Amino acid sequence: MQNLNQSRPLSPALLEQQALADRFLAVRTQTQALAAPLSAEDAQIQSMPDVSPTKWHLAHSTWFFETFILKALDATYKIFDADFHFLFNSYYEAEGPRHPRPQRGLLSRPPLSQVLDYRHHVTDAVNARIEGWADREDWPDIAALIELGCHHEEQHQELLLTDIKHVLSCNPLAPGYASPFPKAMQDIPAATWQKIPEGLTEIGHRPPGFAFDNEGPRHKVWLHEAALSSRLVTTGEFLEFIEDGGYQNPMLWLSEGWDWVKSRNRTAPLYWSRQEDGWQIFTLYGRQPINWSEPLCHINLYEADAFATWAGARLPREEELEYATIASLTAQEDHRALHRAEEPPRLHPSPARQIGNTPFTQLSGAVWHWTASAYSAYPGFRTAAGAIGEYNGKFMCNQYVLRGGSCVTPKDHWRPSYRNFFPAHAQWQFSGFRLAKDI
Amino acid sequence: MQNLNQSRPLSPALLEQQALADRFLAVRTQTQALAAPLSAEDAQIQSMPDVSPTKWHLAHSTWFFETFILKALDATYKIFDADFHFLFNSYYEAEGPRHPRPQRGLLSRPPLSQVLDYRHHVTDAVNARIEGWADREDWPDIAALIELGCHHEEQHQELLLTDIKHVLSCNPLAPGYASPFPKAMQDIPAATWQKIPEGLTEIGHRPPGFAFDNEGPRHKVWLHEAALSSRLVTTGEFLEFIEDGGYQNPMLWLSEGWDWVKSRNRTAPLYWSRQEDGWQIFTLYGRQPINWSEPLCHINLYEADAFATWAGARLPREEELEYATIASLTAQEDHRALHRAEEPPRLHPSPARQIGNTPFTQLSGAVWHWTASAYSAYPGFRTAAGAIGEYNGKFMCNQYVLRGGSCVTPKDHWRPSYRNFFPAHAQWQFSGFRLAKDI
Amino acid sequence: MQNLNQSRPLSPALLEQQALADRFLAVRTQTQALAAPLSAEDAQIQSMPDVSPTKWHLAHSTWFFETFILKALDATYKIFDADFHFLFNSYYEAEGPRHPRPQRGLLSRPPLSQVLDYRHHVTDAVNARIEGWADREDWPDIAALIELGCHHEEQHQELLLTDIKHVLSCNPLAPGYASPFPKAMQDIPAATWQKIPEGLTEIGHRPPGFAFDNEGPRHKVWLHEAALSSRLVTTGEFLEFIEDGGYQNPMLWLSEGWDWVKSRNRTAPLYWSRQEDGWQIFTLYGRQPINWSEPLCHINLYEADAFATWAGARLPREEELEYATIASLTAQEDHRALHRAEEPPRLHPSPARQIGNTPFTQLSGAVWHWTASAYSAYPGFRTAAGAIGEYNGKFMCNQYVLRGGSCVTPKDHWRPSYRNFFPAHAQWQFSGFRLAKDI
Amino acid sequence: MQNLNQSRPLSPALLEQQALADRFLAVRTQTQALAAPLSAEDAQIQSMPDVSPTKWHLAHSTWFFETFILKALDATYKIFDADFHFLFNSYYEAEGPRHPRPQRGLLSRPPLSQVLDYRHHVTDAVNARIEGWADREDWPDIAALIELGCHHEEQHQELLLTDIKHVLSCNPLAPGYASPFPKAMQDIPAATWQKIPEGLTEIGHRPPGFAFDNEGPRHKVWLHEAALSSRLVTTGEFLEFIEDGGYQNPMLWLSEGWDWVKSRNRTAPLYWSRQEDGWQIFTLYGRQPINWSEPLCHINLYEADAFATWAGARLPREEELEYATIASLTAQEDHRALHRAEEPPRLHPSPARQIGNTPFTQLSGAVWHWTASAYSAYPGFRTAAGAIGEYNGKFMCNQYVLRGGSCVTPKDHWRPSYRNFFPAHAQWQFSGFRLAKDI
Repeated sequence: MQNLNQSRPLSPALLEQQALADRFLAVRTQTQALAAPLSAEDAQIQSMPDVSPTKWHLAHSTWFFETFILKALDATYKIFDADFHFLFNSYYEAEGPRHPRPQRGLLSRPPLSQVLDYRHHVTDAVNARIEGWADREDWPDIAALIELGCHHEEQHQELLLTDIKHVLSCNPLAPGYASPFPKAMQDIPAATWQKIPEGLTEIGHRPPGFAFDNEGPRHKVWLHEAALSSRLVTTGEFLEFIEDGGYQNPMLWLSEGWDWVKSRNRTAPLYWSRQEDGWQIFTLYGRQPINWSEPLCHINLYEADAFATWAGARLPREEELEYATIASLTAQEDHRALHRAEEPPRLHPSPARQIGNTPFTQLSGAVWHWTASAYSAYPGFRTAAGAIGEYNGKFMCNQYVLRGGSCVTPKDHWRPSYRNFFPAHAQWQFSGFRLAKDI
Repeated sequence: MQNLNQSRPLSPALLEQQALADRFLAVRTQTQALAAPLSAEDAQIQSMPDVSPTKWHLAHSTWFFETFILKALDATYKIFDADFHFLFNSYYEAEGPRHPRPQRGLLSRPPLSQVLDYRHHVTDAVNARIEGWADREDWPDIAALIELGCHHEEQHQELLLTDIKHVLSCNPLAPGYASPFPKAMQDIPAATWQKIPEGLTEIGHRPPGFAFDNEGPRHKVWLHEAALSSRLVTTGEFLEFIEDGGYQNPMLWLSEGWDWVKSRNRTAPLYWSRQEDGWQIFTLYGRQPINWSEPLCHINLYEADAFATWAGARLPREEELEYATIASLTAQEDHRALHRAEEPPRLHPSPARQIGNTPFTQLSGAVWHWTASAYSAYPGFRTAAGAIGEYNGKFMCNQYVLRGGSCVTPKDHWRPSYRNFFPAHAQWQFSGFRLAKDI
Repeated sequence: MQNLNQSRPLSPALLEQQALADRFLAVRTQTQALAAPLSAEDAQIQSMPDVSPTKWHLAHSTWFFETFILKALDATYKIFDADFHFLFNSYYEAEGPRHPRPQRGLLSRPPLSQVLDYRHHVTDAVNARIEGWADREDWPDIAALIELGCHHEEQHQELLLTDIKHVLSCNPLAPGYASPFPKAMQDIPAATWQKIPEGLTEIGHRPPGFAFDNEGPRHKVWLHEAALSSRLVTTGEFLEFIEDGGYQNPMLWLSEGWDWVKSRNRTAPLYWSRQEDGWQIFTLYGRQPINWSEPLCHINLYEADAFATWAGARLPREEELEYATIASLTAQEDHRALHRAEEPPRLHPSPARQIGNTPFTQLSGAVWHWTASAYSAYPGFRTAAGAIGEYNGKFMCNQYVLRGGSCVTPKDHWRPSYRNFFPAHAQWQFSGFRLAKDI
Repeated sequence: MQNLNQSRPLSPALLEQQALADRFLAVRTQTQALAAPLSAEDAQIQSMPDVSPTKWHLAHSTWFFETFILKALDATYKIFDADFHFLFNSYYEAEGPRHPRPQRGLLSRPPLSQVLDYRHHVTDAVNARIEGWADREDWPDIAALIELGCHHEEQHQELLLTDIKHVLSCNPLAPGYASPFPKAMQDIPAATWQKIPEGLTEIGHRPPGFAFDNEGPRHKVWLHEAALSSRLVTTGEFLEFIEDGGYQNPMLWLSEGWDWVKSRNRTAPLYWSRQEDGWQIFTLYGRQPINWSEPLCHINLYEADAFATWAGARLPREEELEYATIASLTAQEDHRALHRAEEPPRLHPSPARQIGNTPFTQLSGAVWHWTASAYSAYPGFRTAAGAIGEYNGKFMCNQYVLRGGSCVTPKDHWRPSYRNFFPAHAQWQFSGFRLAKDI
């Protein structure tokens, strides 16, 4: 369910000790800030097996630093609590047995307050050692591990918000995580088809700089002539699909998707509900009327594919999205503006607006893009040795790549080569899509 | 899972307003006292569908008084929160839709603190009105409702302890609810066979005094000559069964029981675990070495029946236990001493000791006795009208009667005609058994 | 799912060798006659785990004679095929491992033709030995075993018809097992309430004569004053329940029953279907219009109990039905007329008609009567030793007693003390009910 | 579960009427020949939802010709039985409702004999019309439909054998479909690594000639430098994996694969069993000792991937296998020799032997090759209109491509561009693999 962990050579900036220490503290602080609005009860709940409690995210991201950095690098480090090693391992078989994932919500002990103590203990311990480590010969490796831990924790920041949204949605009171609900525009650019030319290109992470190992090796890929929509599919467009009987027509669906629709009696995306006064959507700001200009979110691959079939189009392949993203970046030389045009951050996708000269909007920063690409190893991919790398290829089966990044992806976390992945049926992520077609 | 609710004519004592007000406050206070050692996180968790969170028990027992007494009797009463009616109804179809039972653990809101406010609001509101109500013509009915609410809440006191035991047992840290673990004797009386004579007798509640409706009508029943063990089966006796291959021998088990053993790979009772230094048992005091003299607890009907078959005996019928209990009471005229010989109360069953002249020990006060009697209506039983009574017979299918009362049954809650009932597979109650045989 | 097997002292008549040989041959021939209308494909199918293929019934009833009589009594007997011992054991743990019940339909080999050869082989082998055995000292035991085998096979005759009905019902072509559908009356006697007086009585099998062991020991039981309907509930009466919203009203149902209704979306009894031209019922004669005067059949205990609640009545207890049956028999001294008034046999329940002076109709011969009595051991019941008796009590949990016998129960198989039993949810048996009430 | 159906322009040869008529009759006859050794009971059984009864294969392949050719082209055609349209549709939503797939084994009617009549009726009807149709203007379309029907039926010929193998394997008697078990060599060539060069190539079907639509459009793909094993993995090599604890080591498995191993307690491939005298394998010739030189078969993608990880290699991508196949064909210009070197056909994979100069053995004709390629649309793929084409893309989710063809693939059915596909967990197909690695 989450990206694989493996470091690549770092950029020179991050090798500077102070910069890394600042980044480390900023990430650690931000996670606590995200949990701050939540009660001990909120932080306890696991609403389905895919969801982890907030408390678990707080503890597991701390366990990562304790296990792979403090314990590994410093024999004098005193572990906070030996039991936590069993409780807060996620899926690292090499680290031994662990508490079963579907039972994370059953751990009332340690309480939230103790988990916060654990966080401070580990943050302080890493912070106190960074200066000394910077003198060591293996500092590049250490720095890479710390950066990896920061990226790992940023993933859990997004999951924390994604998961607590699901938790709160299960309460008939529909409580919000934040308020007030930010106002949003109603006018968006018309969708146009943007051409992807035929030819050989390269995709995948180009070092230096951090990336997860599944983003490499960089390699050649042949692009086929195609066109990509200039913007994401909106809620309003999906409403047309619904009103045209989309959820009742087996001819539009993948076979597995149709089984899913029938067995679950689905008639609308996750978090949509038809109230007396019209369609509403559950958001991190509680239940709200749907803005028909905003990007569609919380659909699964089955729904995305059915809509594309209905629209006479298809889902893009991951190389098409990476190509378009890089091309846009080159055009405007403004990655950050592309990635996160919104300030202050919104916890719900904004309607599209044009930024700069790129023909595309929201290739990042709104919702993850489902792709037609099954999640698999790039040519030449190799699993790294040891616990951190053990599972590099372990999830490369029956999952699909999502590209871009969403409104809840941390600002510094994303890059154009980023490969997120989830099973085709997953809806609870901030996932939408844009259309593609062959020409 | 819990006894049906229906009142019977009250005894004169309880019709006295002050006595009833005192009892009401004592019951309400006791529930909060039971929850006091638990954190907000502890009180949140539902570890399986049969278990309810502590917070839910606190709220539901309050909802009962608000719905059936305050709302029903006083149009001026201002309800605490309209949403709670949906959230905290248990299974009263006449009271409209309700939150699904398996999702009680998903309600982080209202928080525990607000549920405690709700409790105080309702307790105060009832208390403020009792004096006035005592002047009304329908006071006997009102008093009966309040007494019913008290008994209902006492049931939830036992369930609160039973459920939190299961919740805490799911944590690998095996935390205790209380401490220290009370010392217990190792010497217990030898088991002897006590005769039940053939003949016509009567069982069932004899008014006045409170009883649930399933305890009546009092009616004739023909006893067959039999013998009943003078004490409960112990953990030590059950260990012999285990060591004799009891869990591996299909000839000892009911057909359903054998399916249960195989599909769950059971080899010992719930809460038993084999540690490096011997058998341990999870208790409300955390994990403890097993005292082989203590009554066996937390087995289901399948396990009880298999042991009885192995021992060449059978489970008693409910009329045999009621007869023995009444006979013992007559002999010593000391119901309370029989019921709860232990002071202070222990939250774990004590080994047997002889009290007075009765030939039996622990017909109450240690563990519930599984019986061979399917839970069914007594001759002449009728369901009362309205919401409180709607479900009188609703659970009379595929459940079995348990008699006696356990160490966690509130002291004033039990009586010899009391019929508890659970499905044959249920293990998480404080349930054991004693042997019977035909002679 | 089927009655336990254990013999009792036989009546003098059956101890006569020629009479027993005749009975044996008649039973064996009748089973083959029941299978004769079926193709090899029909005889192969297991339409749900509870159902056994016709071929399996043919083989298993033969395995019983081979295992418990031929192999046990005659060391020179050559078994037909050693593999069959594994394939055609039903649930006798003492006889070793066996083919899993839900996979009986997967055995295309041996083919039907070979199973018929097996039948002839075993029938001939028993028949050839009976004369010799009659000279042996243990002849009474042998005769009892043969009689037990005959009764066992008669049970399977009924199951064969019950099961093939379910098999054929799964085919959209709705093929019939027999034809033509016999004409039936539309006029039936009005239902009246017949009193059951209070007092001590005895129930259970009174030797000599064959009975299964669960019918004894004969024992005293106290009857409570009550009334029993003079006839079975009809399809027409159940239609009123349906049209009154019976399947939509939770207040009428046992809690388990309501869960069953909702999870299965039930709105009518098994085998009923609403066609364009009205309600139809699937029968062993194919799909037919429902005769509203015929006894209701193929409902489960939940449906029977819900109807009784709706009608302000209850289900009878098994002792009430046994008492009424014996009383009726005494009045008219005509057991057979009561049992099976129809000639030739119908494979679908007939509407009631009055026979003789008894106030009751169809206490047997139409449909099995669901009772309020959980299936449990009679006082003094003991399991016999050895394989045949091993499971005497094994099914005495979470099943309910059915009394009377149905239109597909073999004529000589039933007696007033007969206790059939099935789980509360079972519908595929020929099961209906009559109302009782307390007075 | 089966390839999509869509025709492509035919080769000139097949447009000749007599050649097509001959091919049609040969295919129809061959299907009946495959069913000939089976009894009516054998042909009835569906041993799991993925399996279809032999009778159903016989009927469905006939329904295809009746529905898409006879009914579509000739208004005067009298359908054999109107009910069959519902019973024998597989998954064509445009053709209306159909009998549920998991209940195909419940149809004892029509009997096998009537299904054979149905076959003859439809075969004769097509045959009688071919000559007339050849004069029509739309003959090329008609010919393409007939050729499509032939290929569809050839798919079902393979499935018939694959499915009956599973059916017979469920019988403890382990009966064979054929005999005697053909002798096989023990000596096989050593495995060597054969280089795949980097560069642009084309894959996909090149018209004319028949292909399913998922084999096109032919398109460019960039090959990465790699190496491919010269032969398939053998049973003996897999035994080493087993004996090295392969099924016990989570580090070797995909995450989904490890869940599958644990939940199913797998310790060996499907059809392997450890007998007292060593490992045996269930084959279409019954249970046989394993020949350690034969290609591994009946493993799923999880097992293939775990072995590859254990061996320090990976599974090939489909373009690598297609490239190698074409390269080999060019080298020796002997497609048929490559495809099916064995005469007479064996129903169990043969050990490898070298044929001609190609460096590879058994790129076809032994077992299907699992690949690392998720089954997805080729660039430019479009779903054809109408019922035949409706599901072209419908299965392109969570399935993996298998290349080559197996010993039970009909001789004329396979071509190098052929894309078979099954879910990663499927074992019952004749599926194995060969290793690849990056260099």
